Amino acid sequence: MTDTGTIQGLMMAEPLTITHLMRAAIKNHPQREIVTRTWDDRTERVTYAEFGRRVARLANGLRALGVKPGDRVASFGWNSLAHLELYYAVPCMGAILHTTNVRLFPEQVAYVFDHANDSVVIFDTDLVPAIARANATAPQQAARRTHIVIGNGPDALPGAIDFASVSANQPDTYDWPELDENAAAIVCYTSATTGNPKGVMFSHRSTRLHALFAGLPDSLGVHQYDTVMPVVPMFHVNAWGLPFIALQAGAKLVLPGRRLDAPSLVDLMASEGVTLSAGVPTIWIAVYEELRKREMTLPALRNLIIGGSAVPPALLDRFDAIGTTVSQAWGMTEMSPIGTVGYVKAELRDAPPERRREARLKQGVFHAGLEWKLLDDDGNEVPSDGIARGELYVRGPATARSYYNPDPGVNDAFVDGWFRTGDICTVDEYGYMAIVDRAKDLIKSGGEWISSVDVENELMGHPAILEACVVGVPHAKWIERPIACVVPRAGETIDETAIRTWLETRIAKWWIPDRIVTLEAIPRTGVGKFLKRELRAQFAQLLSAD
Amino acid sequence: MTDTGTIQGLMMAEPLTITHLMRAAIKNHPQREIVTRTWDDRTERVTYAEFGRRVARLANGLRALGVKPGDRVASFGWNSLAHLELYYAVPCMGAILHTTNVRLFPEQVAYVFDHANDSVVIFDTDLVPAIARANATAPQQAARRTHIVIGNGPDALPGAIDFASVSANQPDTYDWPELDENAAAIVCYTSATTGNPKGVMFSHRSTRLHALFAGLPDSLGVHQYDTVMPVVPMFHVNAWGLPFIALQAGAKLVLPGRRLDAPSLVDLMASEGVTLSAGVPTIWIAVYEELRKREMTLPALRNLIIGGSAVPPALLDRFDAIGTTVSQAWGMTEMSPIGTVGYVKAELRDAPPERRREARLKQGVFHAGLEWKLLDDDGNEVPSDGIARGELYVRGPATARSYYNPDPGVNDAFVDGWFRTGDICTVDEYGYMAIVDRAKDLIKSGGEWISSVDVENELMGHPAILEACVVGVPHAKWIERPIACVVPRAGETIDETAIRTWLETRIAKWWIPDRIVTLEAIPRTGVGKFLKRELRAQFAQLLSAD
Repeated sequence: MTDTGTIQGLMMAEPLTITHLMRAAIKNHPQREIVTRTWDDRTERVTYAEFGRRVARLANGLRALGVKPGDRVASFGWNSLAHLELYYAVPCMGAILHTTNVRLFPEQVAYVFDHANDSVVIFDTDLVPAIARANATAPQQAARRTHIVIGNGPDALPGAIDFASVSANQPDTYDWPELDENAAAIVCYTSATTGNPKGVMFSHRSTRLHALFAGLPDSLGVHQYDTVMPVVPMFHVNAWGLPFIALQAGAKLVLPGRRLDAPSLVDLMASEGVTLSAGVPTIWIAVYEELRKREMTLPALRNLIIGGSAVPPALLDRFDAIGTTVSQAWGMTEMSPIGTVGYVKAELRDAPPERRREARLKQGVFHAGLEWKLLDDDGNEVPSDGIARGELYVRGPATARSYYNPDPGVNDAFVDGWFRTGDICTVDEYGYMAIVDRAKDLIKSGGEWISSVDVENELMGHPAILEACVVGVPHAKWIERPIACVVPRAGETIDETAIRTWLETRIAKWWIPDRIVTLEAIPRTGVGKFLKRELRAQFAQLLSAD
Repeated sequence: MTDTGTIQGLMMAEPLTITHLMRAAIKNHPQREIVTRTWDDRTERVTYAEFGRRVARLANGLRALGVKPGDRVASFGWNSLAHLELYYAVPCMGAILHTTNVRLFPEQVAYVFDHANDSVVIFDTDLVPAIARANATAPQQAARRTHIVIGNGPDALPGAIDFASVSANQPDTYDWPELDENAAAIVCYTSATTGNPKGVMFSHRSTRLHALFAGLPDSLGVHQYDTVMPVVPMFHVNAWGLPFIALQAGAKLVLPGRRLDAPSLVDLMASEGVTLSAGVPTIWIAVYEELRKREMTLPALRNLIIGGSAVPPALLDRFDAIGTTVSQAWGMTEMSPIGTVGYVKAELRDAPPERRREARLKQGVFHAGLEWKLLDDDGNEVPSDGIARGELYVRGPATARSYYNPDPGVNDAFVDGWFRTGDICTVDEYGYMAIVDRAKDLIKSGGEWISSVDVENELMGHPAILEACVVGVPHAKWIERPIACVVPRAGETIDETAIRTWLETRIAKWWIPDRIVTLEAIPRTGVGKFLKRELRAQFAQLLSAD
């Protein structure tokens, strides 16, 4: 007897690790397949049983190369079997996989390799030039890393080891260590409103719990009978967890490699009978156009999970019309990432079609592993009435509590045990969350973040510009593209072409605003901040013909 | 930098508690309903939002009665809203709910109340006689407990408090404590082959993890749109987790109360549109007969989860024929309880119907939260070929590591970090497990365990009996019933009627063997143990006409 509540349950202390997930998948579904496009565009397939042996050989090979528990191993590549082997081998041997975004600028790539303290970098052969460019910005640090190249393309990196040779002649089994479930498993960097990318350090526990919450029937809802193709890259928050969720379910997994153009994706989905896929709207807009061009549908494709940006209503309607249900998902790197998924709740099943569509176009319903609150400017919780707006705060066992070795101020997003998302939202009476505005200054183009602050800073460095405000406006293909509103200095005029050329040497080409609009003044809030919401509304149609 | 693998993830340390599950359910699905049959056979319905307020009022009321963190509170009742409130209020306030099997003998009820050290016992009004009988066997211990009665039936227990009065005038909110996820939440006793019931002490963590693993699409697979009616009692391993899984999913929950006869169940399933239900075969055999009598089907009922005993093939076929999919589930109290669920794997989707049926009649596929191995008599793992037999060992984060305050020897089932199930099984090349024999001496009649050893011991105490061996044989209604094979002492003859009368004063009526067969000798193994397998085979048809 005690009155302190300290009586413990008498259940096994088995840790929640990726190792246990892998073991269960191999043992329960030994004959299920993983299909991959390889670096040289072949299609290869292995069973889960063979996958388990490949992972063991790779772990043995990495150990032979000196990789130790706690070491950071960077991956820099497309969705492939090789990448999947790294997803399991590196964390299960006790090391930490750093899934690096191949679309970062060379300086950023070098920065994250250095910040994560990667001792090994493993990359696809077609990305050798990107690695070389990154290494050129910090050659001394680069020289300390082991470089391993997947495939044998035309570009070579001097000194790089062949990935296939790492596993060659290694044993089919590995003495996987029993890990602490809170040990780091994967680190993934996310763009900041300004400054350096921020690292989120996922643990084995958070990865397993995310796979469970996101794997539930009304989240991503992956079944054993599914054939899952993540188009969302494996360098984007673990491809939303699908490489773990698929193996947890015993589903067939299809990895499309580097060919992410619509014709290649349609070919692969049709030939492999993909039932569930996931990616940003830009991809699915192109896939839909390709299907229309070929006058075909994908009858096996039962669920298309679209996230990364809000789903355009027309895209939802178009896939509905060809028999594929679109589920909108919303999340953030800091949430592992799934937070909400859109589906028609039982309460609305008998509602008119327009009402159901309206619900599906919201960001969705929070899963059971996330607590949330919407706070107004005074810090009071706002009601769930679909009207009252508040900034969204979340917390949960798969939510970050800190960035990894953060720059000063960056950890201000973590407040009293909650993560402050920066999104202004409503939640309605049924629990559907909708993002209605953005508190932070980021633009999302084709699923990738652009820092408006960084672009503004460069623009305001131009001699002819007094003030610059960069906002995202709707774009048919990229969902959102940046435009710049600039105020010239007294006596200056704005030469758009000259300014674009000037920017090209300073920021990535795809960060350059699609339009540079001259204004007499930038509208401001009462406290003098740019009133971006007003500019977004004013220029909402600016790129409608693009 | 370290080479010890001790780099920690940077994720929130939010504990996995029932409190968090409850909060998320109320906030994400405030309008979803819980429907209950009450003690006086009315139908009552509340929303999740109102349920949250009821749970808070009950917790406040129990605190006012002196219930403190760590205290044990026994429930003794049917599947009802009141019982569901206890499922959440008691663990979330930091106390421990002891869900007591109302079908135990009075001495066993008194034993488990005492063993668990229950300070409060809360029971349905129609079970007052059972409580009175149990209390009569140990009046001094009973006098120390607070008794709370749900409802106001004809039988009264002197001094019992009215359940409704506990919550009356209490606040709608409760300052739920932040609990350790490993704290005990629920204790449930399971029958032993001989001796006293054994307590399994579930933690908040194991309860949450079980709800996640069992809630996945190919396990119990509960959706938000489901209307879930657990017929399996809430005193049977948490009704297989459904009271947690349903709220985790935001599903509508229907609780049938004390009326478990087929006509009442069919009425309720039809009127509430139940889509998913669960229970032992005996119940569903009766429900099928009722449907046939009424010449009706249950078109909403998409999934019927049958466990507790092997599913009779005819039952599977009959429900298939009326459009309800039967999923076989296997589990044990020690596993929280779900271990396997039967479904048609993708690998067999194109197989002939007979092959698919054969797979579905096995016990099913293990979920991702359980590790398992089959060991032969020498302790070697046997291959997954569907032929090789081994004893099943399991482990996982929702598996017990010990019984609660076990009697000597009882904890021998826990071996090197594994739980030894006592079942002899095969696993085939697709991962389907089948139980082919039982290493332990238990018989399961209508979903409840009967200890063959205890019955044998009583029989062998009879002056006319030299040896007795009790085995379970197939029975149309109860799936399995005990029969006794007895060898008379020299010069004695067996009078079956006299022996049955004699047993009636010694064991529960439903434990009495359906037949007492006289043999010259009991077949034995090489080491002299009764060869029960042979007797089961020899008498397999004995009750086929019953």
